[in-house]
Amino acid sequence: MAQKLRIIPLGGLGEIGKNMTVYEYGRNMIVVDCGVMFPDSAMYGIDLVLPDYEYVIQNQDKLRGIVLTHGHMDHIAALPYLLREINVPVYGTPLTLGLVERQLKEKLGSHRKVDLKPISALNTLHLGPFRITPFSVAHSIPDSVGFVIDTPVGAVVHTGDYKLDETPAGGRTTDLAAIRELTPNGVLAMLGDSTNADRPGSTPTERVVSEALDRLMTEAQGQRVIIATFSSLLARVQEILYLAKKHGRKVALTGRSMIENVELARDLGYLDVPQGILVDVDAHIPPAQMLIISTGSQGEPRSALNQMAEDQHRHVKVGRGDMIIISGGTIPGNEEVVGAMLNKLFEHGARVIYGPMDTVHVSGHGSRDEMRTMLETVQPKFFIPAHGEARHLHLHGQIAEQTGMDPHDIFILKDGAQWVTDGTDAWTDEALAVDDVFVDGRLVGEIGEVVMRDRHRLAQDGFIVALIPVNDKQQLVGEPQIVSRGFVYMQDADALLAAGQEEVKRQYKKGKHNLRRALEDFFYRETRLRPVVLPQFITV
Amino acid sequence: MAQKLRIIPLGGLGEIGKNMTVYEYGRNMIVVDCGVMFPDSAMYGIDLVLPDYEYVIQNQDKLRGIVLTHGHMDHIAALPYLLREINVPVYGTPLTLGLVERQLKEKLGSHRKVDLKPISALNTLHLGPFRITPFSVAHSIPDSVGFVIDTPVGAVVHTGDYKLDETPAGGRTTDLAAIRELTPNGVLAMLGDSTNADRPGSTPTERVVSEALDRLMTEAQGQRVIIATFSSLLARVQEILYLAKKHGRKVALTGRSMIENVELARDLGYLDVPQGILVDVDAHIPPAQMLIISTGSQGEPRSALNQMAEDQHRHVKVGRGDMIIISGGTIPGNEEVVGAMLNKLFEHGARVIYGPMDTVHVSGHGSRDEMRTMLETVQPKFFIPAHGEARHLHLHGQIAEQTGMDPHDIFILKDGAQWVTDGTDAWTDEALAVDDVFVDGRLVGEIGEVVMRDRHRLAQDGFIVALIPVNDKQQLVGEPQIVSRGFVYMQDADALLAAGQEEVKRQYKKGKHNLRRALEDFFYRETRLRPVVLPQFITV
Repeated sequence: MAQKLRIIPLGGLGEIGKNMTVYEYGRNMIVVDCGVMFPDSAMYGIDLVLPDYEYVIQNQDKLRGIVLTHGHMDHIAALPYLLREINVPVYGTPLTLGLVERQLKEKLGSHRKVDLKPISALNTLHLGPFRITPFSVAHSIPDSVGFVIDTPVGAVVHTGDYKLDETPAGGRTTDLAAIRELTPNGVLAMLGDSTNADRPGSTPTERVVSEALDRLMTEAQGQRVIIATFSSLLARVQEILYLAKKHGRKVALTGRSMIENVELARDLGYLDVPQGILVDVDAHIPPAQMLIISTGSQGEPRSALNQMAEDQHRHVKVGRGDMIIISGGTIPGNEEVVGAMLNKLFEHGARVIYGPMDTVHVSGHGSRDEMRTMLETVQPKFFIPAHGEARHLHLHGQIAEQTGMDPHDIFILKDGAQWVTDGTDAWTDEALAVDDVFVDGRLVGEIGEVVMRDRHRLAQDGFIVALIPVNDKQQLVGEPQIVSRGFVYMQDADALLAAGQEEVKRQYKKGKHNLRRALEDFFYRETRLRPVVLPQFITV
Repeated sequence: MAQKLRIIPLGGLGEIGKNMTVYEYGRNMIVVDCGVMFPDSAMYGIDLVLPDYEYVIQNQDKLRGIVLTHGHMDHIAALPYLLREINVPVYGTPLTLGLVERQLKEKLGSHRKVDLKPISALNTLHLGPFRITPFSVAHSIPDSVGFVIDTPVGAVVHTGDYKLDETPAGGRTTDLAAIRELTPNGVLAMLGDSTNADRPGSTPTERVVSEALDRLMTEAQGQRVIIATFSSLLARVQEILYLAKKHGRKVALTGRSMIENVELARDLGYLDVPQGILVDVDAHIPPAQMLIISTGSQGEPRSALNQMAEDQHRHVKVGRGDMIIISGGTIPGNEEVVGAMLNKLFEHGARVIYGPMDTVHVSGHGSRDEMRTMLETVQPKFFIPAHGEARHLHLHGQIAEQTGMDPHDIFILKDGAQWVTDGTDAWTDEALAVDDVFVDGRLVGEIGEVVMRDRHRLAQDGFIVALIPVNDKQQLVGEPQIVSRGFVYMQDADALLAAGQEEVKRQYKKGKHNLRRALEDFFYRETRLRPVVLPQFITV
């Protein structure tokens, strides 16, 4: 009996982040990408979110390898966590593997050996029944690829993150011709990047950013220029290095990830650093001949740019003589912190260029017209919009319908879905139960919904612990005490808490079963707040 | 000796929200606007933020009246709080006063009488030495005005919120000609709306929104149409009513503020509701002939649209047959909740049009070119950018410089600043100490920084209360207990808390002074989390 191909997205469908997809055929399995997601504001105190890869661990005997599309954190940074639990070779382009190596070293230490195997565009990799051929894509980090995955039931195109920029900064365009050549018998299924499915038209080319930066550096004569961008946006860094040379400026880097990434990319030959252009950030160079490339475009508290805003950067003090350019889009959820950082930079007197003011950043993901072109190029029999929240997946599905696809051949899936095909038909089997896996401090997957709910309530109104001394007959013996934080802090808080103490005594006489509820009601009546209330009996 | 004019912004300079400005001349004072701000995400559990109007209360004997530019919450909604403390007449256009009346009734009850006095464009109001003449402005709520405030030392133009839309939905444009005519001797100072100072060009006219809605309603044949917008965006509601009539649809309203605002505006003659077009939301009308206007464009949890998304709306169940249009911009900070709501609407199968997809919303504030035009029209001697965060104020200041103003005549102020002029020169006196005033439940101004810091820590990592039974000699007598919420909740939490208990005993022997710190260190070592730790001694 013929086997079936099973595609199981473990992350990235229903969110932008933690991308991870299982391809399974009989006794063989590969995984594409293994990334993290950064927590949203409802995930109180959480550091990172991992995909729920329990299924991969359970089926590790089948696993032939993990292949990576590119080196962004949402595609690689869950690897150290997975590789604590299983051992499997990891395949990626050299820059991607360089970034993986650093993640592994940070999180696993240097003793742990992982089998990292380089791949390159158009060189086919054989893993069990899967023949995997990478093709180049234009994205905001060099050495990005998508995959044509040949399986016994047909070819699958896994686009990875891409845009169809014809003049990208790194020069590498998305190789649509290769996709066509690699799929002479057509494409059974495509998983396509949905990130910008709500943006009409095409994403502007990186060249418009270079032009804007060039123009701004011309205007900045006499001023120091500080450009904040993502440390992974190495193509942008390359452009900035060339522009610095053109404008006769030295370049200093600040921010740990910026320094490390530039070093890595330079060592691997992905970055052409003009001779003698790099200087230390505290070098004695006239401001007008200085350009600083910094981290912190998202306002991250400990980033270099935010330290400048807070006047806490060790070497850079910003002021009237500075032009500061935020060359990175604001990731949804970061608007407030970025805004606060910008305000402080303005207050220092700097000239600041950001977001809507000029084209100092473009997305690394294609927009609707590019998605349409990709779909028309690949012409898949089945289509699975990937890499997006529900709205992006649905909108991407609508584009596919507009290209003439039958709505029944378009599958809007969620993480854990089991999509199955025999090469002719496709359907979904019962979904795996998957959940966000929270990393909080040292704890992985141990913080769940209950703790989140408690933190949410604590964040709103704080807590009250009522300590109630009782004897072994459960009779009140002595004064109850009330301990509280995050609730109220005011002149008459003492009176309020004292009244609460009286309420405890009064309620206790009525029977302690409703004590929690009674106290909640009491404090709500008094303040209209709903702190977490914990009555605690102490047997004395 | 000649008196000086003193302008003191109590809110709105350094934030978008809680607008309130004091004009003081000798023994006379007026206040322009008295609004609230909605809390940002760092203001844990806070319901509203008020301007710090202590100065007004202290100087109430000088206060001649409060004049209002328009009826948005960030300009009127702090009035009920201020009017609990002082009694003063309030001046506004009829729609503004209608909205104020509702706020007062909700917050003060109907017994309290406030002296509300209607004003209208070009009719001058005399309050002490101030001659205040309202002029019409185009904004996203009808009946908006700015003021020319004539003072003994010169005329001040207080623009209020405005755009220079030549084809606004309500038909009322910003009356630049009036400003010129009202200031034959020139303008001493201008306070100008800075909201969109980072947006190049001009804000698109409301007409493009009407055109987009018209086009979408044509596409929606056979479908029910649901349009979510701000309940204060009455000009937009007017356009939607006309479009509904054109497309042969009945209109139902859902969401309390939408129903109330439409009623109010209709009663006051600001809304022309076509005969017989309004129906109840549960009326038996074929979906293809139904249009629902809803609240909830910001994803507010209890709003009508969010209830639909959550499948909890009493009368409206959304699905494949619906086109849902979000005709309201996302206020910074709301991106995540709006995104989550959109995802759910898509998952119900509805066609959803929002934000970047089409021009279904435009801002009510002018962009850079409009600010330039306003500055060139008014030609103030001194300029105070207002209504914005620091970055908007600075950018607005830069525009003024570009029009040829001397940088020394441009004042970037903060809340509490005392800007003083004698008609010739201008300077700032020592600023008043003002702060955000938090409304939390029933408490006003009593929740401060300490509580915020505690809530922040509680939100991150929860709390631990260690109950330590001691005798009157402070000796440990019995087992310590540990109570915790929002910290960990996992299989081996018991073991961790038990270990914490042992740590208490061990540390207690060393002397209890460092108990809190020792426990913090212990739990950090174990979990890399930093819960709030409270050791609590119980004398038994």
